[in-house]
Amino acid sequence: MSRIFKSLTKVEDALDRFFTHIRTLSPETVELEGALGRVLAEDIYSPFDVPGYNRAAFDGYAVRSEDTFGASSSNPITLRVIGSLRPGDTTDITVGKMESVKIATGAFLPDGTDAVVPLEYSKETGGGFVEISRQVPPGANVDRIGSDVKRGDLVLRQGTYIGPFEMLLLATLNMTKVPVRRKPRVSIINTGNEIVELGSDLSGGKVVNSVRYMLISLLHDMVVINYRGIARDDEDFLKKKILDSLDDDLIVTTAGTSVGEGDLVPRVVEDLGGSIIAHGLSIMPGKPTLMAIIGETPLIGLPGYPVSAAVASLEVLIPTVGRMLGIRGKPTYPKVEAILTRRIASRPGVRHYVRVKLTKEGNRLLATPVRIGGSGIISSLTEGDGFVIVPEDLEGYEAGEVVEVLVYKRWLEL
Amino acid sequence: MSRIFKSLTKVEDALDRFFTHIRTLSPETVELEGALGRVLAEDIYSPFDVPGYNRAAFDGYAVRSEDTFGASSSNPITLRVIGSLRPGDTTDITVGKMESVKIATGAFLPDGTDAVVPLEYSKETGGGFVEISRQVPPGANVDRIGSDVKRGDLVLRQGTYIGPFEMLLLATLNMTKVPVRRKPRVSIINTGNEIVELGSDLSGGKVVNSVRYMLISLLHDMVVINYRGIARDDEDFLKKKILDSLDDDLIVTTAGTSVGEGDLVPRVVEDLGGSIIAHGLSIMPGKPTLMAIIGETPLIGLPGYPVSAAVASLEVLIPTVGRMLGIRGKPTYPKVEAILTRRIASRPGVRHYVRVKLTKEGNRLLATPVRIGGSGIISSLTEGDGFVIVPEDLEGYEAGEVVEVLVYKRWLEL
Repeated sequence: MSRIFKSLTKVEDALDRFFTHIRTLSPETVELEGALGRVLAEDIYSPFDVPGYNRAAFDGYAVRSEDTFGASSSNPITLRVIGSLRPGDTTDITVGKMESVKIATGAFLPDGTDAVVPLEYSKETGGGFVEISRQVPPGANVDRIGSDVKRGDLVLRQGTYIGPFEMLLLATLNMTKVPVRRKPRVSIINTGNEIVELGSDLSGGKVVNSVRYMLISLLHDMVVINYRGIARDDEDFLKKKILDSLDDDLIVTTAGTSVGEGDLVPRVVEDLGGSIIAHGLSIMPGKPTLMAIIGETPLIGLPGYPVSAAVASLEVLIPTVGRMLGIRGKPTYPKVEAILTRRIASRPGVRHYVRVKLTKEGNRLLATPVRIGGSGIISSLTEGDGFVIVPEDLEGYEAGEVVEVLVYKRWLEL
Repeated sequence: MSRIFKSLTKVEDALDRFFTHIRTLSPETVELEGALGRVLAEDIYSPFDVPGYNRAAFDGYAVRSEDTFGASSSNPITLRVIGSLRPGDTTDITVGKMESVKIATGAFLPDGTDAVVPLEYSKETGGGFVEISRQVPPGANVDRIGSDVKRGDLVLRQGTYIGPFEMLLLATLNMTKVPVRRKPRVSIINTGNEIVELGSDLSGGKVVNSVRYMLISLLHDMVVINYRGIARDDEDFLKKKILDSLDDDLIVTTAGTSVGEGDLVPRVVEDLGGSIIAHGLSIMPGKPTLMAIIGETPLIGLPGYPVSAAVASLEVLIPTVGRMLGIRGKPTYPKVEAILTRRIASRPGVRHYVRVKLTKEGNRLLATPVRIGGSGIISSLTEGDGFVIVPEDLEGYEAGEVVEVLVYKRWLEL
């Protein structure tokens, strides 16, 4: 971590410049079954009204509302029951004066009726009659045609991330095919002489290429990974791997454990005629992150230390992939407020990510820094539950301050 | 939504009773590649030290710390450089008095040395010598063997959800295989005469079985879905589908649009000798949710209205699946604080989920309720960004109050 950057670039400034080189990917069509986690490439307009008919919103009796005027518990009105309807039933009944139809939630409102009296204001009196003890205005307890979605309505905009509720709506609209952005093909190249594949013999100080698994896990539902293997710290070897990857949409390299003079990536980028957009970001860990363009292909060089690579992934990699996909907005993360149990010191001008463990003490949530410093410490990520992010304009937080914690655990035990 | 429940059960009480019938699933072994999103079935102890050797934490010079005592910028000390080491290099160099080795971050510390002087406190003076302008104590700028993880340390506990950082750690420990809980096999049975499969002709008031897609999307990475198709509102037909599903770990039914007398599921559960744990929860939407046990198989009957089914999935279904997997803790969700722009009224004793749209006004975040009521309104989920949850002991929130919003969008545009 000793590389001395002449100046550090703010992530936002670096991304602004980087994004001018990033194109939104082309659209493709997928089956709805495969649309979860994809991004809409077109605006979606509703092809029909939802509901497609006036529908009972309660179980009860479909009535002509005018017949109920004046009805009350002390003055019930008696209607003839001429049929019953459940969802999916079709009927050609027309309901006449002082008549009604027993109806279940979701069923068609039959011709002639314009309101539903809920069951609790009704009493079957036998012989095909019902007593109504409440008056209802026209439209009462009815889901009107198009009240959810009107035919022609813009329901989902281009750039919408498709989650469970978007799946629900697209299915409701009977869309078997969905126009989405192609997933970016992302080359991953891990460099470092000491790095070997999972399952290898680790004698002689070898370490597993574990950042590979973290990166694939962070990106897995957004991209297609093109794993290019491990590049030894050899300029020609790395150059060849990058050249092989130029047809992909994004190249992600990781340095070995080292990020100093042994980091060949910036040199190779320049040898290949690429331009460096930013090298050295004002985030910690994550400072040695590189952003570059080779030809038209963007390259993100992540630091070798896993914690640094994790922070740089959140700050740079995921937003870049989001940009390629044309996703509207920013990723959302679970956040909680907690009381800091120990002072955090940070360098002004640099945004610090401090891993903290959350615990509960009575009704209070406490955040305890897991380790001070040490972006080489992998277990700090799993021992911690989240990050306290100290902004650039602060010198840290005092013990006892209420801080916001970005929780990176999907399930949290307190 | 007109079913009248004699009493509503608190979700927590219903789950407590339900969980006494839920067994944690058996373990199985998977390749690390497939372990993301799974749940550890065993405690994981580290098979070795991480790092496995004393390692340079900075680029610089590996030195015998005693040789640097007294060094300063005004009084630099000159050491002979007898070699250089990068990560992955092995060496049998032994460094003697007033000697040093140029070293890159992550490289082995050679025999004889016990500290690293960072590059910025060094100056090569030619002829194989370096000037050191800072004294370092023993262990300075060295990642000591086992300083991240010690051999034999408990690093991840049984019941841990495996996310990207757990993948990183497991890979670091060279674990090619991981003991995880078997995924629950979940039968999904959607009932309702009006419900048809995606892509069907919707004339005659038919509606697509869209809840299927929402449920599969909410659960997709946690379970194996056994989709059993649509059951017409016919007791024998539904009974057969449930009987066919009893070998699965969990049965999830959804009512049709109707949830009143047309809802056959509770009746069929009792016909089959099952016992109803709770029917009618104090949540809104989601009230008509059913929890039952048939033999040893748990069944969750979700309401037919999609918004109700969504809320019941968050409150009941996902925690139940988590219980089967033995996951520690509770799911985490993105949350923000926002100022409510309109009053929300709610019934005391019932926990209300109100869909809200988030907008930014200057530095303030505003939450505007999307629609009041109407759990049939599917588009309220996609127009909204999250839920304001009104607890049981309140009658709502006033306009202008600061409320917490559970954000259900993965990407949010403000």
